Amino acid sequence: MRPSGRQPDQPREITLTREYTRHAEGSVLVEFGDTRVLCNASVEAGVPRWLRGKNQGWVTAEYGMLPRATHTRGGREAARGKQGGRTLEIQRLIGRSLRAAVNLKRLGEFTITVDCDVIQADGGTRTASITGGCVALIDAIRYLQRKKLIQQDPFKQLVSSVSVGIFRGTPVVDLDYPEDSGADTDMNVVMTEGGGLIEVQGTAEAGEFTRAELNAMLDLAEGAGRQLFEHQREALGMRG
Amino acid sequence: MRPSGRQPDQPREITLTREYTRHAEGSVLVEFGDTRVLCNASVEAGVPRWLRGKNQGWVTAEYGMLPRATHTRGGREAARGKQGGRTLEIQRLIGRSLRAAVNLKRLGEFTITVDCDVIQADGGTRTASITGGCVALIDAIRYLQRKKLIQQDPFKQLVSSVSVGIFRGTPVVDLDYPEDSGADTDMNVVMTEGGGLIEVQGTAEAGEFTRAELNAMLDLAEGAGRQLFEHQREALGMRG
Amino acid sequence: MRPSGRQPDQPREITLTREYTRHAEGSVLVEFGDTRVLCNASVEAGVPRWLRGKNQGWVTAEYGMLPRATHTRGGREAARGKQGGRTLEIQRLIGRSLRAAVNLKRLGEFTITVDCDVIQADGGTRTASITGGCVALIDAIRYLQRKKLIQQDPFKQLVSSVSVGIFRGTPVVDLDYPEDSGADTDMNVVMTEGGGLIEVQGTAEAGEFTRAELNAMLDLAEGAGRQLFEHQREALGMRG
Amino acid sequence: MRPSGRQPDQPREITLTREYTRHAEGSVLVEFGDTRVLCNASVEAGVPRWLRGKNQGWVTAEYGMLPRATHTRGGREAARGKQGGRTLEIQRLIGRSLRAAVNLKRLGEFTITVDCDVIQADGGTRTASITGGCVALIDAIRYLQRKKLIQQDPFKQLVSSVSVGIFRGTPVVDLDYPEDSGADTDMNVVMTEGGGLIEVQGTAEAGEFTRAELNAMLDLAEGAGRQLFEHQREALGMRG
Amino acid sequence: MRPSGRQPDQPREITLTREYTRHAEGSVLVEFGDTRVLCNASVEAGVPRWLRGKNQGWVTAEYGMLPRATHTRGGREAARGKQGGRTLEIQRLIGRSLRAAVNLKRLGEFTITVDCDVIQADGGTRTASITGGCVALIDAIRYLQRKKLIQQDPFKQLVSSVSVGIFRGTPVVDLDYPEDSGADTDMNVVMTEGGGLIEVQGTAEAGEFTRAELNAMLDLAEGAGRQLFEHQREALGMRG
Amino acid sequence: MRPSGRQPDQPREITLTREYTRHAEGSVLVEFGDTRVLCNASVEAGVPRWLRGKNQGWVTAEYGMLPRATHTRGGREAARGKQGGRTLEIQRLIGRSLRAAVNLKRLGEFTITVDCDVIQADGGTRTASITGGCVALIDAIRYLQRKKLIQQDPFKQLVSSVSVGIFRGTPVVDLDYPEDSGADTDMNVVMTEGGGLIEVQGTAEAGEFTRAELNAMLDLAEGAGRQLFEHQREALGMRG
Repeated sequence: MRPSGRQPDQPREITLTREYTRHAEGSVLVEFGDTRVLCNASVEAGVPRWLRGKNQGWVTAEYGMLPRATHTRGGREAARGKQGGRTLEIQRLIGRSLRAAVNLKRLGEFTITVDCDVIQADGGTRTASITGGCVALIDAIRYLQRKKLIQQDPFKQLVSSVSVGIFRGTPVVDLDYPEDSGADTDMNVVMTEGGGLIEVQGTAEAGEFTRAELNAMLDLAEGAGRQLFEHQREALGMRG
Repeated sequence: MRPSGRQPDQPREITLTREYTRHAEGSVLVEFGDTRVLCNASVEAGVPRWLRGKNQGWVTAEYGMLPRATHTRGGREAARGKQGGRTLEIQRLIGRSLRAAVNLKRLGEFTITVDCDVIQADGGTRTASITGGCVALIDAIRYLQRKKLIQQDPFKQLVSSVSVGIFRGTPVVDLDYPEDSGADTDMNVVMTEGGGLIEVQGTAEAGEFTRAELNAMLDLAEGAGRQLFEHQREALGMRG
Repeated sequence: MRPSGRQPDQPREITLTREYTRHAEGSVLVEFGDTRVLCNASVEAGVPRWLRGKNQGWVTAEYGMLPRATHTRGGREAARGKQGGRTLEIQRLIGRSLRAAVNLKRLGEFTITVDCDVIQADGGTRTASITGGCVALIDAIRYLQRKKLIQQDPFKQLVSSVSVGIFRGTPVVDLDYPEDSGADTDMNVVMTEGGGLIEVQGTAEAGEFTRAELNAMLDLAEGAGRQLFEHQREALGMRG
Repeated sequence: MRPSGRQPDQPREITLTREYTRHAEGSVLVEFGDTRVLCNASVEAGVPRWLRGKNQGWVTAEYGMLPRATHTRGGREAARGKQGGRTLEIQRLIGRSLRAAVNLKRLGEFTITVDCDVIQADGGTRTASITGGCVALIDAIRYLQRKKLIQQDPFKQLVSSVSVGIFRGTPVVDLDYPEDSGADTDMNVVMTEGGGLIEVQGTAEAGEFTRAELNAMLDLAEGAGRQLFEHQREALGMRG
Repeated sequence: MRPSGRQPDQPREITLTREYTRHAEGSVLVEFGDTRVLCNASVEAGVPRWLRGKNQGWVTAEYGMLPRATHTRGGREAARGKQGGRTLEIQRLIGRSLRAAVNLKRLGEFTITVDCDVIQADGGTRTASITGGCVALIDAIRYLQRKKLIQQDPFKQLVSSVSVGIFRGTPVVDLDYPEDSGADTDMNVVMTEGGGLIEVQGTAEAGEFTRAELNAMLDLAEGAGRQLFEHQREALGMRG
Repeated sequence: MRPSGRQPDQPREITLTREYTRHAEGSVLVEFGDTRVLCNASVEAGVPRWLRGKNQGWVTAEYGMLPRATHTRGGREAARGKQGGRTLEIQRLIGRSLRAAVNLKRLGEFTITVDCDVIQADGGTRTASITGGCVALIDAIRYLQRKKLIQQDPFKQLVSSVSVGIFRGTPVVDLDYPEDSGADTDMNVVMTEGGGLIEVQGTAEAGEFTRAELNAMLDLAEGAGRQLFEHQREALGMRG
């Protein structure tokens, strides 16, 4: 039995609120249950130095957590003077995942930075960031098209993400904090609408996991993915 | 004429939403028009080293701005590896101001940290932070009382803050970003309900200002202060 | 009664020694009683990146304290790896204040950096820095004129600064350390010769202050200002 | 055809040289072909603050690359003043993986730090680090037993790691640099002797990968794992 | 011929002004010609962690240069966020040298930190720092004795330092900046009154130097040393 | 009697292994007994900003120690976020010494960075770094010549280095760690084949040293230098 009373294959309630703030070219508040992440996509002319003159754009992500997004207050990374390893690892994952949604060659020499800032954390902040960040990214792309700053459509495919895990021996999807902190195995899956895999990151927190468990978890992720893509399409006014 | 069409003595619409997030002992979203700041007050047992054994508590504040709270994206301070001078200056001001609301001797050996994170900026983020932070601080104090962690009531007085300035020759209150960036003089005033002054920080951005202008600005601040205290009392269910 | 035996409206003995060191284009040792600050103004060709091509100059300030300028040794900021919030706040204030002395449009594409390094501290280091820094700044401007590097005269007006406060219930001017550490209210005022205000930063250290007290403090600042400008003019060989 | 001429399921030549340096309690040079990593395991009394009094030990890892371990010189992280995101991500992975080899409860209040420093890089530095680090870790445990510093045997199981990927459409094992930089999909697998999975981190570098490809890659990893465990057992003088 | 017109064996005019600032237990302004360094010795109870319980004291030094001590303005190390290699090298040298003046066993568990801050630089700042720092250190020791905080006399011997070099083929003593920047070889010598050597650091800036040149330089240092010790004794009111 | 049983004038066994790693233009493992340092020389086009357009090249060095190169584990400088003073001091010495081997005017606008990373430390890491780094540097120069990237030969002379000291009253050469940590005086000497001195850095660790001792130590260094140059020539296939 899950602490939340959810079925093993039942993700939390998911909402995607576009235009959540006013300045960003794409601004989405994503909620996976009590996990709330503000995903702001910013368009800037130019690309990083190592891409200059290559006639392509760039998509990157940054991740942060407000100090009291969590049960107990965490130190402010800006005050400590550096981003922690967990933060850097997560923002690298978000960036890689979001780049799978875009044809960088068609983006022109623009950089889109997707800032994912966790307002409230209850497990699954990185998967929510990818799912919401993809919507913000598409809004930023639409902005570029609307302003006629790019001619071609760099959008390639929707990308979404969900966590799966083995909790008290049972494979479950979209772990909240009580499950996440007690799970034997935790896996984050980044997927495309067509059923393809972009990232699979599974970790045995205690013991190990089997190939069979891995497959059960991937099945759950696939099922939840269908719902996530539906949410994304609906938010963006896309047809399935 | 003000860009927003407001009267010189008319502050923006102000809202204070308590219990905005779930984990913090006090969590208030404060809005001064389009300026939105999340103020989370966190209670922690213990005091900074230099206060140990002095039989008193401590109240401090930290301030941050989400990278795309502003018109153009600002670098993430955590990524740059340090907080800028403006950030440090503002959080020192917020901390000093909020300590005026509390009798630290009655707080016991607890530290309350008020994190003020700007979700969307449109001028006046520091005054909104103080005004909203005070409400979050009181919620944190009530938490300590409810949990019977302290016996006495450390609450001393409400503290609120508003900006005033000289915009195109006219004294105005609660400047939004278009006014703030074009004002000749900008002043932040921190006040108590009884009409006392906690902080007055006036800066001539161009030219200088006279004693008469200073007084006109303080009159405006006093008027707006009455409204701010009314908002705070209403949010907290206090009588005037 | 003031610990020093001074009258409430009596500033400390003030001296301004020009050409204190040999390399800087302007080098002034300013003494407000036992507070001694070395103000070195350095001329460098070019302006910060964000001002390039705008056909104007820039004036900025940096502030530091020798580790044993104070009663007990403070850590060296260079060794700690960052400047503290107080340092940054003060150097921002000095920079803003000194820019009020100069017409940046007439400065050409030069940057003048005024380094204010506290050799010995006894209260009022920031006000001494502004008062002495203004003299060093003018020497640097004269250097530019003497070398015919600029054609027009960028000097606009003298700027000086003094602290005022409420000490044991009485408004006093130019607080030394024993007063400063015990004052109920502390205010730094930056003024022009014409009686205008550039900066007013008042802080209630304990309790609050009234409009009447604010006015009494500003009167004291104005009185001391007249003496400071006289010292500056005398040091610079200017007529009143 | 692989650039190296290897079969798809053929790992590079693997060597594990124990006692490579003199001071560390465990010191192993691991070579996966031209990739050479020095893994030094250091025993220190005590545990991190957050584990004190919990009657258990700790195993952690740090990872670094000599500046010229790679084709072109990379900046020295110590000179840049921080470890990059890739470094932190890798050392977190190594640490988690090695903890799976140990029963921390039986380790006593000791910390074993496994430093993995890449002398020469040719792809697969993190998998080599885990494979060699496990041997160094066991030598450090044996040191503790030999010195009678612990009574029980904290060794739980061997852990090894190998990379797999899809290179030009074909699943291959143990990618060297030319393959790694051109692969469509890259996956690092951390395994136990019993066939269990500790970590699975798969990334689509271009496009996406399918469940079938994932399974093919895991089969390859399993096969190479058998060889890696054989190398570890042989190096350590253990029976299979 | 030396640019200054001095004889090869003629040091610059040397002055040692004690009690230069008010707060430090020892405060000496040392001048070697136009090189001016403020040496403040601070007494603090306690010793660094690694010396605790060893029943001895510690003497250390820190070195800094005011940004405009030099011909062109150098960046402020506190603003850059770290001390440069030259700074660290010099302060390590000063610390080692000053420890030779003291019997640490007799100092009790006190730390004396000698801050050497260069007010004006004209070559030889490190040798001036050692020479002046020694006098400040002795004043700090006398303070400890006067306050009866220590029973025994930890003073061991005077230590002084001077630079020597080969300038245009001729060995010269106490190089000023024009010589220092053009010298073929530069050597700093730290000496005791009894003729012993504490530190010898010779560097060929161009080409190399011979044993004969080394000896000629050491002879010069010895000669200048006699004068330096005389200055120190006179400043301190000691007999030769 | 030396702990190692060596004669006072007997250096440890010295080996220089070229092409130790594969990517660097010069890669030498140098061993002075149990001290092992990997010296990698990297060629990069371009020179530091302050040398641009001066039509010359640059040679610099960086130094690091693997965390467990020593008896007890030292913290990783990259993790601590800065290089220590000892590290910076050593790498500045290595850089200056190696520049004496090269005619920078003939190097073209190339920078050669010699990374000296200590794999195992047993005293004398800086002297081994210079001796081995010189060989790596020459290999990098030969690479530039072989690739016809430079026309002239920038090689000037071999440079080598050895430590000498006074151990239990006796001058000895090439101190290992037990001697180094117990020596009264420690001196590092950098020499040229022709008998010239590049650097002499002598430090009295306890007491002081005399001119006679200095000379005895230099004699020993000269003797060992002859052997070091022989090793370098042999490794490089040069005639004596």
